[in-house]
Amino acid sequence: MALIVQKYGGTSVGNIERIQNVAEKVIGWRERGHQIVVVVSAMSGETDRLIALAKAIASRPPPRELDVLLSTGEQVTIALLCIALEKHGCPARSYTGGQARILTDNAFNKARIQAIEADAMRADLDAGRVVVVAGFQGVDEDGNITTLGRGGSDTTGVALAAALKADECQIYTDVDGVYTTDPRVVPEARRLDRITFEEMLEMASAGSKVLQIRSVEFAGKHNVPLRVLSSFQDGPGTLITFEEALEAESMEKELISGIAFNRDEAKLTVLGVPDRPGIAFSILGPVSDANIEVDMIIQNIGRDGTTDFTFTVHRNDYERTLEILRQHAAQLGAREVSGDNRIAKLSLVGIGMRSHAGVASRMFEALAKEGINIRMISTSEIKISVVVDEKYLELGVRALHEAFELDKAA
Amino acid sequence: MALIVQKYGGTSVGNIERIQNVAEKVIGWRERGHQIVVVVSAMSGETDRLIALAKAIASRPPPRELDVLLSTGEQVTIALLCIALEKHGCPARSYTGGQARILTDNAFNKARIQAIEADAMRADLDAGRVVVVAGFQGVDEDGNITTLGRGGSDTTGVALAAALKADECQIYTDVDGVYTTDPRVVPEARRLDRITFEEMLEMASAGSKVLQIRSVEFAGKHNVPLRVLSSFQDGPGTLITFEEALEAESMEKELISGIAFNRDEAKLTVLGVPDRPGIAFSILGPVSDANIEVDMIIQNIGRDGTTDFTFTVHRNDYERTLEILRQHAAQLGAREVSGDNRIAKLSLVGIGMRSHAGVASRMFEALAKEGINIRMISTSEIKISVVVDEKYLELGVRALHEAFELDKAA
Repeated sequence: MALIVQKYGGTSVGNIERIQNVAEKVIGWRERGHQIVVVVSAMSGETDRLIALAKAIASRPPPRELDVLLSTGEQVTIALLCIALEKHGCPARSYTGGQARILTDNAFNKARIQAIEADAMRADLDAGRVVVVAGFQGVDEDGNITTLGRGGSDTTGVALAAALKADECQIYTDVDGVYTTDPRVVPEARRLDRITFEEMLEMASAGSKVLQIRSVEFAGKHNVPLRVLSSFQDGPGTLITFEEALEAESMEKELISGIAFNRDEAKLTVLGVPDRPGIAFSILGPVSDANIEVDMIIQNIGRDGTTDFTFTVHRNDYERTLEILRQHAAQLGAREVSGDNRIAKLSLVGIGMRSHAGVASRMFEALAKEGINIRMISTSEIKISVVVDEKYLELGVRALHEAFELDKAA
Repeated sequence: MALIVQKYGGTSVGNIERIQNVAEKVIGWRERGHQIVVVVSAMSGETDRLIALAKAIASRPPPRELDVLLSTGEQVTIALLCIALEKHGCPARSYTGGQARILTDNAFNKARIQAIEADAMRADLDAGRVVVVAGFQGVDEDGNITTLGRGGSDTTGVALAAALKADECQIYTDVDGVYTTDPRVVPEARRLDRITFEEMLEMASAGSKVLQIRSVEFAGKHNVPLRVLSSFQDGPGTLITFEEALEAESMEKELISGIAFNRDEAKLTVLGVPDRPGIAFSILGPVSDANIEVDMIIQNIGRDGTTDFTFTVHRNDYERTLEILRQHAAQLGAREVSGDNRIAKLSLVGIGMRSHAGVASRMFEALAKEGINIRMISTSEIKISVVVDEKYLELGVRALHEAFELDKAA
């Protein structure tokens, strides 16, 4: 018998039929002898409907009242799911965020979970009930309703799994797992049975949008095994787990888990700045003051007392960043500021590359064969990212997928 | 400065524009220096929409989960009203039933309020905030969400007024007060400035549907002055208050306050039953066992050792009651069972009739003049009810309205 937390998103509970499907799925797991906690989102469209009501009154509704309003979305779903479960003779009890004692700070609209008092839920589980919890919401120490911000239901699921020491947290989505790369770009892309938290984080930060980064981090930090699977078709999904667990089971670790990519990048270069301490901060300080997020940062060794400094930002921030750099160029002693907003980032992710030399050269070789010029390179322990002209993105992804034989299981 | 509790029903908050109108009304009262607590219902149609969702899954949804579902209706309204108030710079805070600490028993779908812990609301009022409370809902001692049943928002308003020792509880509806009788029947019907609780109860039980009987009783019991007024037009409405308060202000009390009537009645007579103790119970026992509510009961003095026993029920229960009586007739030793479901009840209500002889004879005279035959008579201290053939209802109401000059203020 295992204790499993399952999270179903808005599409999975989008109408009465789908809620009934979820009920049947939950009952199936329970009949296999497991204790089940279900976290649900608002029915798809409901949160947008509620926001529209608020915006019809005031363009900037008070955050506290917006949370009172939005939290009704998940409250409707928990009640409907319990009604569906009980109809099939499955004992169930719904919990709002407050009833589940999901205690948060009081940052309305983007609250953080601080603690969960799980005694009541545990008693219900021990009494054989399915526990159904409203995702995305909690309560602060004064009893105010708070919400965790969009996508917060994943976080609720992981936090509950941690608090209840669940054996697994299952995130049901509209895809059936994590793939070696986007199947829309590479039809041969293969679903991974397993992936480590580190890899999943690198995949997510490099553009693969299966899970919210925040919930992956949270799960890794609290040792909660995560599984991504589909609400609409059966299958084992992808288990996101720890390196040790992976190594214990598979003697030969896969070299590369997947290829992530990001189309929305732009790069900026400050040329010929004096090669002296503090120069990086002088350049990036004004950028970060403007609340612009910087992704890759590259500085090569200097020459003739000057150096070139390059970084990437989201494409939407390109013009604004260029403006800021030009304003500061003289003061920085820079020769020139240049940029390009037609670039893309392409990342090879795999825990196996740590112990295998030659991954980088094999990657560069594969790109070269296709005549793809590499503009920037950046590496972490389990990731190699390159920036290329945007037009080469799909070609590059396909070339790498083939070169590393990702269509074949290791 | 007064503390006023205002209750706005579903029609009054039926869309965004109306919610904004309510906000303006509330701000007007606050600007006149009053402390305001607002109780709101779900937007009209919303409760029905939620019930339809539940019924689409199960014909008899579990009561606890139905309450979790239905309570979201008022929660949406409190948030939207607070957004509207704050938009106009009026500080406000919303309270769900649980946050307002409206403690009820655990009879889901028809819970009773047991206590209200009003400290937090009082602190908000003292800080100059408008307090906005979700009607119709509370929380039991285990933290489960409960609802008070349909029409429960009136009860919430009155209970809050009692707990906060409010100066007045204002019930906003789609009529502008309590009338001497239904203006659709008598165009000369006049709005009453004041009426006593006892009169209001008799009016309500005799068919005038302005307020829920339960909330009138509750207000009377807890000494909360009630005022009925319109959300859609300005005006003083009707104050429902205590006899002493009325007497202090008006030397000459009006004789009659109003005429209530009820079209949905049916009468049944058991003829020639032995005139012995226990006969009333023998007749009504099986009726009440069938959960049929009995309204008027009349038994005249017996003759020749037998008596005739007559009572009225709701017209929908007529056939069923007739069936029950026929089954028991032999056992009761009754000669015959008869009935009529084309009757109507017509009631004269007024605290003044206590001290004025001749009200009854004046009433009977007025009806006789129109050739209306009286089938049954029943009196209480402040009410005289007669049963007449249904076809005479409107004629009778008009005749009495004129005979007692109800179109003229006393």
